[in-house]
Amino acid sequence: MKIHVLKNIFQRNDNAARENRELLDTSNVTCINLLGGAGAGKTALLEAVIPLLADSLRVAVLEGDLATTKDAARIDALGVPVVQLLTDGGCHLNATLVQQGLQRLPFHELDLLFIENVGNPICPASFDLGEHLRISVLSIAEGDDKAAKYPILFKDADLIVLTKCDLQPMTDFDFDAVTRDLRRINPEAEILQTQARNAAGIDPLSTWLLSHCRPSSMASVK
Amino acid sequence: MKIHVLKNIFQRNDNAARENRELLDTSNVTCINLLGGAGAGKTALLEAVIPLLADSLRVAVLEGDLATTKDAARIDALGVPVVQLLTDGGCHLNATLVQQGLQRLPFHELDLLFIENVGNPICPASFDLGEHLRISVLSIAEGDDKAAKYPILFKDADLIVLTKCDLQPMTDFDFDAVTRDLRRINPEAEILQTQARNAAGIDPLSTWLLSHCRPSSMASVK
Repeated sequence: MKIHVLKNIFQRNDNAARENRELLDTSNVTCINLLGGAGAGKTALLEAVIPLLADSLRVAVLEGDLATTKDAARIDALGVPVVQLLTDGGCHLNATLVQQGLQRLPFHELDLLFIENVGNPICPASFDLGEHLRISVLSIAEGDDKAAKYPILFKDADLIVLTKCDLQPMTDFDFDAVTRDLRRINPEAEILQTQARNAAGIDPLSTWLLSHCRPSSMASVK
Repeated sequence: MKIHVLKNIFQRNDNAARENRELLDTSNVTCINLLGGAGAGKTALLEAVIPLLADSLRVAVLEGDLATTKDAARIDALGVPVVQLLTDGGCHLNATLVQQGLQRLPFHELDLLFIENVGNPICPASFDLGEHLRISVLSIAEGDDKAAKYPILFKDADLIVLTKCDLQPMTDFDFDAVTRDLRRINPEAEILQTQARNAAGIDPLSTWLLSHCRPSSMASVK
């Protein structure tokens, strides 16, 4: 009976994810699921890169959290549409909650939608939200053993971003070791190093995003 | 039906947790559940404090992880009994897995057992393992908004440890703000600041542990 219920949960989620993806495809919106542990620096990455995209893409964000609207307030300050999705203690976003968020966004006037998932390196990776791409984030302050210890976070990523790299002199983080582990878990994903506090590595992230989005209809809108 | 199944899962866990606690009580072992996100510094805290306890308490560790025996190897190097509990992708420890771990430990010859939970700031907090005390860990590299955003991690803690405090000059972490949030969520827990890399704050942690453990039978053993 337990297996049957789990199947139902995933089936319901997968149905909603398929509907989300169809809606996004119809509207020509590229959707990215942004995953990582608590404090990996997901919101800081969005704060750093969204201004660089503003001339080329119309961006919006769905912010997933257990509690508070702190992250939505940070995105709102950038002047892009944002909806805070609260899981009320739940450990991951699901496609049904994302579906409700989509209804609150002007997604017919968007090119790129980020969904920032709940800060948790495990559970969110198991739930398809209807996204087209996944970006997985690891703060180097977490330690260089974390790729091997949390393979689920990285195995399906299209891009892996190592954040807070300015902390390297204060840590013994071994970039070569973590890169070897990441390559073993996911040979395909590109790996970027960033320092959101001083914008280092944000240009390559912006370039990656521009090259992985559908052609924008922004030119014709202007 | 979904609710019924969840009830069964928790009921089964709670039954095993009660058995674990009875076993630990009978053997006069104090058990601490160590909780925190991935990379919060839980293993480093154990590495720093266990040597300070060696003269007073007989310590063992159950290490919870999704994958690898990296953490158990670090504890083994301290010369204390350790068992690695692997969840195979599961996002938290449960009392049944802990029960299996207890069978592998000389718990009749122990005073203090640490259970280091899976690195996840959400799910582990919902599962009683049979412990007597909880210590919740937050790395200041995660950011000072994390107490408000992850209240579930802190609300039932007996002690809250802020780790990696040597990174403060490289961050804008506001100790007053996070302390206010923690006090609101959990007015009772003591709060310590540590820097495991240079042992700062580890003496107070050792003192807290000694004062919260049952009287050791170590003297009579010697």
